Amino acid sequence: MSAWRACVGTGRMELALRRDYQESLALVQREIGFRHIRGHGIFADGMGIHRPPRTSFTYLDQVVDAYLELGIRPFLELGFMPSELASGDQTVFWWRGNVTPPRSYQEWAELVRATITHLIDRYGLDEVRGWPIEVWNEPNLPQFWQNADAGAYHRLYQVTASTIKEVDAELQVGGPAISPGSDEWLETFAEFVISRGVPIDFVSRHAYSSGPAQHVPFGTYQTLDPASRLLDQFGLPRKQLAGTPLAGLPVHITEFNSSYRPDNPIHDTAFHAAYLAPVVAFGGDFADSFAYWTFCDMFEEEGVPTALFHGGFGLLTHRQIKKPTFHLYAFLARMGDRPLSRADDHLATTDSTGRVTVLAWAPVDHVDMRRSPQRHTIRLSLPVSGPEVFLLRSSVDDERGNAWTAWREMGQPVSPLPRQLDMLRECAEPARSHARLPVMNGQVTLDVPLARHEVTLLEITPVVSEVPPWWDESRLLGATS
Amino acid sequence: MSAWRACVGTGRMELALRRDYQESLALVQREIGFRHIRGHGIFADGMGIHRPPRTSFTYLDQVVDAYLELGIRPFLELGFMPSELASGDQTVFWWRGNVTPPRSYQEWAELVRATITHLIDRYGLDEVRGWPIEVWNEPNLPQFWQNADAGAYHRLYQVTASTIKEVDAELQVGGPAISPGSDEWLETFAEFVISRGVPIDFVSRHAYSSGPAQHVPFGTYQTLDPASRLLDQFGLPRKQLAGTPLAGLPVHITEFNSSYRPDNPIHDTAFHAAYLAPVVAFGGDFADSFAYWTFCDMFEEEGVPTALFHGGFGLLTHRQIKKPTFHLYAFLARMGDRPLSRADDHLATTDSTGRVTVLAWAPVDHVDMRRSPQRHTIRLSLPVSGPEVFLLRSSVDDERGNAWTAWREMGQPVSPLPRQLDMLRECAEPARSHARLPVMNGQVTLDVPLARHEVTLLEITPVVSEVPPWWDESRLLGATS
Amino acid sequence: MSAWRACVGTGRMELALRRDYQESLALVQREIGFRHIRGHGIFADGMGIHRPPRTSFTYLDQVVDAYLELGIRPFLELGFMPSELASGDQTVFWWRGNVTPPRSYQEWAELVRATITHLIDRYGLDEVRGWPIEVWNEPNLPQFWQNADAGAYHRLYQVTASTIKEVDAELQVGGPAISPGSDEWLETFAEFVISRGVPIDFVSRHAYSSGPAQHVPFGTYQTLDPASRLLDQFGLPRKQLAGTPLAGLPVHITEFNSSYRPDNPIHDTAFHAAYLAPVVAFGGDFADSFAYWTFCDMFEEEGVPTALFHGGFGLLTHRQIKKPTFHLYAFLARMGDRPLSRADDHLATTDSTGRVTVLAWAPVDHVDMRRSPQRHTIRLSLPVSGPEVFLLRSSVDDERGNAWTAWREMGQPVSPLPRQLDMLRECAEPARSHARLPVMNGQVTLDVPLARHEVTLLEITPVVSEVPPWWDESRLLGATS
Amino acid sequence: MSAWRACVGTGRMELALRRDYQESLALVQREIGFRHIRGHGIFADGMGIHRPPRTSFTYLDQVVDAYLELGIRPFLELGFMPSELASGDQTVFWWRGNVTPPRSYQEWAELVRATITHLIDRYGLDEVRGWPIEVWNEPNLPQFWQNADAGAYHRLYQVTASTIKEVDAELQVGGPAISPGSDEWLETFAEFVISRGVPIDFVSRHAYSSGPAQHVPFGTYQTLDPASRLLDQFGLPRKQLAGTPLAGLPVHITEFNSSYRPDNPIHDTAFHAAYLAPVVAFGGDFADSFAYWTFCDMFEEEGVPTALFHGGFGLLTHRQIKKPTFHLYAFLARMGDRPLSRADDHLATTDSTGRVTVLAWAPVDHVDMRRSPQRHTIRLSLPVSGPEVFLLRSSVDDERGNAWTAWREMGQPVSPLPRQLDMLRECAEPARSHARLPVMNGQVTLDVPLARHEVTLLEITPVVSEVPPWWDESRLLGATS
Repeated sequence: MSAWRACVGTGRMELALRRDYQESLALVQREIGFRHIRGHGIFADGMGIHRPPRTSFTYLDQVVDAYLELGIRPFLELGFMPSELASGDQTVFWWRGNVTPPRSYQEWAELVRATITHLIDRYGLDEVRGWPIEVWNEPNLPQFWQNADAGAYHRLYQVTASTIKEVDAELQVGGPAISPGSDEWLETFAEFVISRGVPIDFVSRHAYSSGPAQHVPFGTYQTLDPASRLLDQFGLPRKQLAGTPLAGLPVHITEFNSSYRPDNPIHDTAFHAAYLAPVVAFGGDFADSFAYWTFCDMFEEEGVPTALFHGGFGLLTHRQIKKPTFHLYAFLARMGDRPLSRADDHLATTDSTGRVTVLAWAPVDHVDMRRSPQRHTIRLSLPVSGPEVFLLRSSVDDERGNAWTAWREMGQPVSPLPRQLDMLRECAEPARSHARLPVMNGQVTLDVPLARHEVTLLEITPVVSEVPPWWDESRLLGATS
Repeated sequence: MSAWRACVGTGRMELALRRDYQESLALVQREIGFRHIRGHGIFADGMGIHRPPRTSFTYLDQVVDAYLELGIRPFLELGFMPSELASGDQTVFWWRGNVTPPRSYQEWAELVRATITHLIDRYGLDEVRGWPIEVWNEPNLPQFWQNADAGAYHRLYQVTASTIKEVDAELQVGGPAISPGSDEWLETFAEFVISRGVPIDFVSRHAYSSGPAQHVPFGTYQTLDPASRLLDQFGLPRKQLAGTPLAGLPVHITEFNSSYRPDNPIHDTAFHAAYLAPVVAFGGDFADSFAYWTFCDMFEEEGVPTALFHGGFGLLTHRQIKKPTFHLYAFLARMGDRPLSRADDHLATTDSTGRVTVLAWAPVDHVDMRRSPQRHTIRLSLPVSGPEVFLLRSSVDDERGNAWTAWREMGQPVSPLPRQLDMLRECAEPARSHARLPVMNGQVTLDVPLARHEVTLLEITPVVSEVPPWWDESRLLGATS
Repeated sequence: MSAWRACVGTGRMELALRRDYQESLALVQREIGFRHIRGHGIFADGMGIHRPPRTSFTYLDQVVDAYLELGIRPFLELGFMPSELASGDQTVFWWRGNVTPPRSYQEWAELVRATITHLIDRYGLDEVRGWPIEVWNEPNLPQFWQNADAGAYHRLYQVTASTIKEVDAELQVGGPAISPGSDEWLETFAEFVISRGVPIDFVSRHAYSSGPAQHVPFGTYQTLDPASRLLDQFGLPRKQLAGTPLAGLPVHITEFNSSYRPDNPIHDTAFHAAYLAPVVAFGGDFADSFAYWTFCDMFEEEGVPTALFHGGFGLLTHRQIKKPTFHLYAFLARMGDRPLSRADDHLATTDSTGRVTVLAWAPVDHVDMRRSPQRHTIRLSLPVSGPEVFLLRSSVDDERGNAWTAWREMGQPVSPLPRQLDMLRECAEPARSHARLPVMNGQVTLDVPLARHEVTLLEITPVVSEVPPWWDESRLLGATS
Repeated sequence: MSAWRACVGTGRMELALRRDYQESLALVQREIGFRHIRGHGIFADGMGIHRPPRTSFTYLDQVVDAYLELGIRPFLELGFMPSELASGDQTVFWWRGNVTPPRSYQEWAELVRATITHLIDRYGLDEVRGWPIEVWNEPNLPQFWQNADAGAYHRLYQVTASTIKEVDAELQVGGPAISPGSDEWLETFAEFVISRGVPIDFVSRHAYSSGPAQHVPFGTYQTLDPASRLLDQFGLPRKQLAGTPLAGLPVHITEFNSSYRPDNPIHDTAFHAAYLAPVVAFGGDFADSFAYWTFCDMFEEEGVPTALFHGGFGLLTHRQIKKPTFHLYAFLARMGDRPLSRADDHLATTDSTGRVTVLAWAPVDHVDMRRSPQRHTIRLSLPVSGPEVFLLRSSVDDERGNAWTAWREMGQPVSPLPRQLDMLRECAEPARSHARLPVMNGQVTLDVPLARHEVTLLEITPVVSEVPPWWDESRLLGATS
């Protein structure tokens, strides 16, 4: 049931040194609780690891200490190339990650070995064995790996995987971390590792559902495919590997989102939460993990964000302002581990205490969000215990639990004042309602009307009355009973 | 404008050592911010001050350190009598505060002197000069002062005030801290201090508006007078002292509430917030301070509370669950310092930034809250700047922002589970809504519909648009512009 | 190896509501880390549990929540008697714990059942099964159990144990929690439970080593037995039960200390740490746990303490000032789990990382501490790895790490100023020294001189040199190399 | 008396976003308490402010919010040049600060205006008037200002100062922030501003005392001038401006240290604290502020530090490990505001409470620290009140309070383990000793022996004895008195 919380994405590792990043991660862990976190740039110059004749972990230790303190573990992605080890000058992103192969594979292997060994020394072998290690990022794209050279990637993978297994055979290594659009890469990669007997413990790929980008300053508009296309992508590796020796390996979707652009305002909307709801609710049918890219807007691939809301990937924008998609995850985190029922507009669960929870979402028009239905009603009958239940409902939609809407109403202040930030935080909280409901024949029956783009959580708990016999509300103001 | 936040009441001082108390006070200070705090029992045995041959401040220092750390200062009430200094055995409350005169007025004076001197040594003279010092509590009631002996009180006051002035002439001392129902006591007291030239820097009394108590186990039902009766009581000292040498002295209402019982469920309701709204909004017309009795439900006069909601005085019940009356105060704390308009259902203010705020409340039926109007609408025209404004509205009523209602729906769990406490905290937050509104001729015009027992805050700020020219929401999902 | 940290004692449970108490416990847990905590008074009136017709857990939940949050679990002691359930008026302590049998054993059983059931509901059955439950405290003393009536205690034990086992058969129950001086009580009790088949999961008793009390105001002087007498007491239950069906049951020393008086200044001294060092280091040979009575000076059996240092039992006095005995425990908490060597003046350990630690202590004169040796030297040869080791030494003695000495030099301020408290906190930290030492034949050899009443910790770790080849300290100020 | 705490230096502003930086600053503020903080790079690309067509304050707000929260205010240094506004490609430092003039002075003026206006909007005019604003950094050096072009700097200064005064005439602006070695620059600059009537509110320069650098990997060795040369530099501006219209302007030494290299291990030593002690103690005679460059080792001018101790400027290295020079400042922060006496090896002060403090330091050999005296004794007679005093002494020297020495003994671990960091934190605390001393004729007389490179603080407070008459230590173990 919990593939959805197995991993989350993040901007480059250096950003993890920052307080706003760590405060956002603390909030995410408190209200959602992911198990692993994956981002680029462990070997980027800003981390200061590869400093011949030294290898130094000043900042890596600060990052990993913070992660563990917050109850989240690294999903290591080895890359990009340190300048002093790079064979070329090509970089990606505003922060200039070098994407060329190492000028010495031996020196690369030593860097990998030193890093993994240091992590084991500091955090213990048992701990590090629980951290998947992925080799590079999207080598199928020429902007992420010089010339998208498959042979060079295979060599890098082989050298890296072998080095890791030399350190400890039970460490988990995998790849190829490809982006959508080059699905055949996985098959080629599989053939390579099978034929050469190269170690592999999991396979990984990414999933996105957006079309071509139309750019405006600091922003992008894109079309979207239907959300089901994400699930198709989640499921592809198992299909591709069926019947091969790699069948049965864990499949990790190490990045997914609607748009792959960190400046597409769709990420900030309630539409986005409703659009992704079935993906997050049911993605576990297709893959062992699928990491939302990314947990917060402290992210600089296109430069420092220029406004509080800027279409970043984050579940949170700066200053811990929650977006609707944050609540989608936070709602799931409050659900039970036992599925009760599911449909294309909801998922119901229960747990060992008899508590019943329902996540429901409105259908969306992925072509034009303005045409999404204004209203959608779900009728549910749920098995519960006791004569009555208490219902707490939490909702976000285009208006409620929606700081982005409030921010637009405020005039889109680029750098909001403290008072405005406080108001936005309040507007970002879900609307709550509550009621006591009767139970008939062991069932509670509900009509759940949903507003446009609403995502809602119903929490239903048995009422155990402790009302004392002398309690009489009619006497509250002294009326004689 | 800020008499309403000048002071707040609290249970006996010993309780201030507790964490739940301090966490509640921290929340109150963060969201409201009172200037002083007043409670009974500085000299009760549990504080361990009077320990002949020692005077010891182990706990007093812990309490006052905590107060100052939280940005609140003591409003000292000197009482009750330490057992070893008492002339009799009569006590009040479950916690047995001794209410008899000292067996030695000299020893009492030494205790007062040692305590005030210690506070000056520890916190500085300038600081302590800012703490009003009140002599005893409700000496007009025989349960609080043996036989309600006015002569004995006058003696106690004289000895105490003289001792304090010997320590430092600028310390502020006052009394007589009488309860309602013995209004003539103030006149007698005034004659006494005037005729004897006894030092006095302020006068104090209490105000309550409830009728006789009908008891049930752990609970009380009472009738209420109209809220205006509280304002009458606030205003009485100025009337009584007019024309006397004491005219012009600060008047402190050192306790007020509807019911004087710590087990009347009326304190937990939205009715209560709406009932007190005009008192808190306009009380400053009548007195220099009026201290809501009390800030939290960590309060033990009738014993340890037996359920989460138990009709306690607190703005918060245990575990920092907010009651509607908390929000009344928190709303006021967000208002401006310049009155714009007022009526019997609202108060509007602005401040130096041009921000406009409105506190509005529904009318109540104080005889039978079930008969309070279901709906009440206020029409407002408010002067604002700019072409448009952003409106944030926060509301509590019988359903919204109302943990007490949710708790009753849950079955009134005496000791709620952690998960229930979390749900109650969510249910206790005000409902928020927001909008952008047009401005016509420098005015924004609003119809504000209020639900039964609603108290609402409108915060209106000018919109300064920073929407860039290239922003086009219609393109969010890729429509060509 | 860790019987010493299995449990620690505390003042009555109501005090656990306080912030100073919780801050002290947080410090103790951070630097020592006990597993369980045991104190009196769960059923005392101040906890507000027995409130017929209600049972209420308002405060118990606050206490246990705080304990678990701080990583410590209750060792439940069921007592004393709620006033409304008591058969008589006899009380013990300043805070008046009622020590009479229940007027209804059935009502007592219902109270026990309701309390244990509530704890299971709130914290889970697995959790509560890990909390030992002890019946009453020192029933062999007439001040703690009316008439020290053994038959009545047996009945109380039987009713209680049966009730607990009815709730869940795997809950752990035990007794008789006797004080020293009535050793035969354990045998009688054992005969009773064996002959009747009464459930019992552990046996418990207390250990103290002080002689008769000479009282002065707020203080007591006493003689002490040699510390070995404490170990004798620890070991007695196993001897007494050998050969009986109870042989093999866990033995818990649920209280121990030198003096049983909370106003004996011996508790504040470095003598005390050195005196107890062999007891704490070696007590695990004799019992499954032995709980130092108590972790902090927030303790009121003889009333509110009247001065910062007042001879309280605590490892810490108020405001988290550490006493030497705190450091004895904190030093042990830094030791390894594998014993290397031991003698009557030290214990050496190592762990899986090769780190070696030595706890050493000076011999004491328990008759007249002024006659304890001024100097004592220990010579150690310890197996270590590598060519060199780093040694960190931490020491407390009559001067160093000794806030009590500093406080006396300050003039024994009853209620120190904030600045004085800061200075005392600094004086309370152990003196540290460090060095790099050579290793010969796999051994490091040390002469460890100890000052009077010194307790010291040596931490020895292998030096793994990362000094780069270009490092040359002689050039620090630019001299040519 | 407090010019020494008026300002402290810091690495580039972007680093202020990091948690380790903020935790270090929090510690510095808690134990020292500087009033202002100054560093480079407000307009560097990493801060993301100049983003045409936008000006954005996402990160600047995060930094300044954090500063104010920690009780420290910006001393703004306007620079370096945003890439998009730069006229050339020349950069300085690993982090590539652009040091060329603006390609449009008008666009620069708009950037300055927008930034200052935003700060006033967010923090209030009164607040920002208290922040000195300095134009650029060390324009006299070609690596910091293209060609060290004085004319171009004068133009930049004029445009900037005029723009600032247009925003508000009471904002404080100054320059020229020159490094040592170009003292004539100040005179030329002064002539310029005087002759043109350019606004100026303060003058600024830097002071360093090191000779040429000898480089090793990640390190530098340098000779030092005597510390008095720093005071000469502090005093030069007043001399240079005497008799001009600028005489009497505040003089701010906006950077000072021994070595100007961030990789000179001298910064980590006790020598350094003793060397700088007279500079920090007496610098206020010569300038209105002198900012130690820098408060912590989160500083990347030469790249990410490769080892915990790396010769950084910081008072703290990473992870809040204190260096001896930190203690020099922390000791000063505990001193009084009234000088009692001074000499070339100490400064004595008192305050309104009668507390006497002495900062004393050992003389150093600035040519070869190995030749600094092994021992130096100071004899002091100090006026105190009362019959006895309590003395608390805190010391750091080559061994005590010296984490750097301990780190070298550990083998210089590049990335210490958590356990090693804990040990280093302990080794970094000053050694404490305490005593009660007699007073003769209103004087306490002390011989203060100092170890090599020792810096020590003596805190002397009157003893007010509260020893009760019944206290008898000889009875502690029960001996009859």
